[in-house]
Amino acid sequence: MMQGLNFWKQKKRIHLDYASTTPVHPEVYKAMQPFFSEKWANASAIYTEGVMVREVIDGARAKLAHILNVRPADCIFTSGGTESNNLAIIGLIENLHGTGIAYETMEIITTRIEHPSITETLRSLEKRGVVIRYIPIDSDGRIDVPALQTLLSPQTRLVTCAYVNSEIGVIQDVKKISRMVRAWNDAHDTTVRIHIDACQAPLWLPCALDMLGVDMLSLDAGKCYGPKGVGVLVKRHWVSLNPIMFGGGQEMGMRAGTENTALIVGCVEALVRAQKYWKARSEKIKFLRDFFFEKITEKLPHALVNGSLTHRVANNVNISIVGYDGEYAVITLDAQGVSASTRSACGVGKGNGSAVVQEISGDTARALSTIRFTLGEESARADIIRAVDALKNYMTLMKPQTEN
Amino acid sequence: MMQGLNFWKQKKRIHLDYASTTPVHPEVYKAMQPFFSEKWANASAIYTEGVMVREVIDGARAKLAHILNVRPADCIFTSGGTESNNLAIIGLIENLHGTGIAYETMEIITTRIEHPSITETLRSLEKRGVVIRYIPIDSDGRIDVPALQTLLSPQTRLVTCAYVNSEIGVIQDVKKISRMVRAWNDAHDTTVRIHIDACQAPLWLPCALDMLGVDMLSLDAGKCYGPKGVGVLVKRHWVSLNPIMFGGGQEMGMRAGTENTALIVGCVEALVRAQKYWKARSEKIKFLRDFFFEKITEKLPHALVNGSLTHRVANNVNISIVGYDGEYAVITLDAQGVSASTRSACGVGKGNGSAVVQEISGDTARALSTIRFTLGEESARADIIRAVDALKNYMTLMKPQTEN
Repeated sequence: MMQGLNFWKQKKRIHLDYASTTPVHPEVYKAMQPFFSEKWANASAIYTEGVMVREVIDGARAKLAHILNVRPADCIFTSGGTESNNLAIIGLIENLHGTGIAYETMEIITTRIEHPSITETLRSLEKRGVVIRYIPIDSDGRIDVPALQTLLSPQTRLVTCAYVNSEIGVIQDVKKISRMVRAWNDAHDTTVRIHIDACQAPLWLPCALDMLGVDMLSLDAGKCYGPKGVGVLVKRHWVSLNPIMFGGGQEMGMRAGTENTALIVGCVEALVRAQKYWKARSEKIKFLRDFFFEKITEKLPHALVNGSLTHRVANNVNISIVGYDGEYAVITLDAQGVSASTRSACGVGKGNGSAVVQEISGDTARALSTIRFTLGEESARADIIRAVDALKNYMTLMKPQTEN
Repeated sequence: MMQGLNFWKQKKRIHLDYASTTPVHPEVYKAMQPFFSEKWANASAIYTEGVMVREVIDGARAKLAHILNVRPADCIFTSGGTESNNLAIIGLIENLHGTGIAYETMEIITTRIEHPSITETLRSLEKRGVVIRYIPIDSDGRIDVPALQTLLSPQTRLVTCAYVNSEIGVIQDVKKISRMVRAWNDAHDTTVRIHIDACQAPLWLPCALDMLGVDMLSLDAGKCYGPKGVGVLVKRHWVSLNPIMFGGGQEMGMRAGTENTALIVGCVEALVRAQKYWKARSEKIKFLRDFFFEKITEKLPHALVNGSLTHRVANNVNISIVGYDGEYAVITLDAQGVSASTRSACGVGKGNGSAVVQEISGDTARALSTIRFTLGEESARADIIRAVDALKNYMTLMKPQTEN
C-alpha cells in the first residue's frame, strides 16, 4: 500500500485514456464540496434546510436546461451514462408495453458498434420479444443513413445510436438522422423516437437538443471532468417513459432515490463548463491529435487508423498494428509510463478484441491489435512524442506473430 | 442566494430529522476525497492507475464483507438504498421469470408499512401479474410472525420487510422471521428468499447476515454519515438475481456502470464506522430518546406515541397530537429553528398523512397529525428541550380543529 501511495505522487505518467474517465476538475470539485458535510439536508424535506437544497438542485437543473436548450423538467439526473441509456430504452419500451403494445410488435433500430450499456440493454429487451434491427455501418464507422430509412417500419419505436463512438471516436450525422426520422414520422403518421448516447460528446461537440433534433440524449459527468456516479437523461416533454427504479418519485417521478445534491451540482458544473468551451477545446486538441497521427504515420507506417479521419471527435486516436496484440501493447505502454486502452473500459476483459473494429473492418487480426489513445484537456505535444516512442519501442521489442 | 449562504452558517438550528439523511462524517469525507481528482482512473482499465483503483475497490468490498460476515462477492455496490431494494426484488423475480416461471404464479409477502422504494417496486411487479400478500401488523407496528407463516405457500418466492421502519422506528424480529421461513423451506422443499431493507439500521443495530439469517439486505450510505448516491445490496451467493441495469458487467455482472470509487470508499467507511460503534451509540442515544419521551409526557400529555416503545430503534420519536396537523407542526417547528418531519422524505408531498400510522392505528386523524423526530450522533439534551418547548409553543398558538 505504501508503494501504492507513492505511485500516485509520480508526475511522469502520461495519461492517454481520457475517454474511459476524467479527473474531477478543481472548479467542479469546489462547487460540489459544500454539499457533503455542510448543506446536506434531504431535498424532499419541507423545513428550511431541505427547501434550500431543493433550490440548489432546481437551480442546477435550470442551468443545465439552458445550455442544452430544453426545459428544466426535461433533465432527469441519473447515476450515470449507463443508467441514462437504460432508462431511455427500457423506459420507452415498457411505457409502450403498458399501453397494450406487445413486445413482439415493437422494433428498435441501432448499430452493431454501440457501447455495452446500449447493446446489453437491447439484449434484455430482445429476451422479452422486442425486435432489434441493425443499421449497416461503413468501413469508416459511419451510419448509412439511406439504409436506416429502409429499416424504418410502422413497428419501429426507437432509433438509438452514439453521437460519438466511444472506441473509434467517429461522429454520426445526428442532424441528418433525426431529420430523416422526423420526415418519416410525418409521412407515415408514426412516432419513432430518436435517442442518442452523447456521453463522449460534451467536451468536443455541441449538445443542444434543438440543433440535434433528437428526443432523448444521455450524458455522463464522469467523462467530462465531473464526478463519477452521476449523469443525465434529457427527455423532451413529449416522450413518455416508465421509470426503471421505483420509490419516492424523485426526478419528476422518473428516477427514485434521495437526490444526490453534491453529485448533481458537480454534474451540471462539469457539463456547463464542457459545453461553454467545446469549440476552442476541440480546435486545440484536434491539432494535437493530428500531430499524433502524423507521428504514427512517420514512425509506425504499418499502423492502420480505425474509423473516419474526417468525422472524428477531436481527442480520439485509434489504430491497429496487425500482428501486435492490443492488450499486450497497452501493458507494455503502461510499463513505459503511458496509459492507453484497447477499447471501452466497459468492454474490457471480455476477450476477442474490439467488437467495434471487428464490425467496421471484418478483420479479426485488426480487432485484436487495436489501441485507443484519447486525449484530455491536459494533453501536450510531449505526451504524444513519448507515446509514439513507447509504441515504437514495443514494436522493436516484439516479433509480430504474423511475421515469424 | 446571499441570504441562503448566510443561513447555512447559522449555528442555532436544531436538526432532528437524521433518518431522512445525515451529513458526511469528516473521517468518511477524508477517506473519499483522494478519489475525485487524484486517483480517478477507471477501475476497469488494465494499466497501473486502473489496477490500483481496482485494488482500492476490492479492499473496500472486503472490509465491508468482513463486518457483515459475508463474502466480498456478496456485496454489490448500488446508487443507494432505493436501487438496492429495486435490485433485490425485481432482480429475483425477473431471474425466476427467466427460468420459465410465470409472473402470475409468483407471490411476494410484505407489509403495508414499507418504504416507497419497496411498495412502489412491488406495485410495478403487481402490474406484471405477481401476487403481493400482506402480513398483518399489530398496533405496535410489529409483524405478526405466526400470521406470516399462514401466508406462506408453494408459490411464495420472497418475504421482504424493513429491519427498522423508517417512520415509526419499530424493529422487526428478523431472526424469528428468517428462522420461521427457513423451517418452512426445509419442511416444504421450497426456496422462499428473505430480503430486509436495513437502510435505517447500521448506526443502531447489528447488521451481520449470519446473525440475521436473511438472504438479502439493503443498505444506504447517506443514512449513516456516508455520502448520498451509494448503497449496497448484500446478496448471499446462493441467490440468483437478474441485473436491472445493463452494460459493462461491473459489480460481478449485477450492476452496470463505471465504478464510483470515491462513493464506494465513503460508503464502506461509513458503514464500518456505523457498525463498529453501534452498541455504544445506541445506548447513548436511547437515553436521550427516553428523555425526549419523558418531556413529551410531561409537557404534551395529549401526545400519542406511534409504534412500539420496547422494539424501537434508539433514535426515533414518532408522535401524533390529534387535531394538530403534522405538516403544519413541522413548518411551525422550522420557524422556531427545529427541523423535524411528518414521515419518510421519500413519502413527503403525497398528502393524506402517514400511511404507516394510518395502517397501525386505523385512525386518519392520528395519521394526519404525525410528527417524526429522529436523533443523530450530534443530538444533545438541550436540543430535545428546545424541540419540546417549540412543540408546546405551537400547541399554545393553535386551536386544534377538533376542539372548537
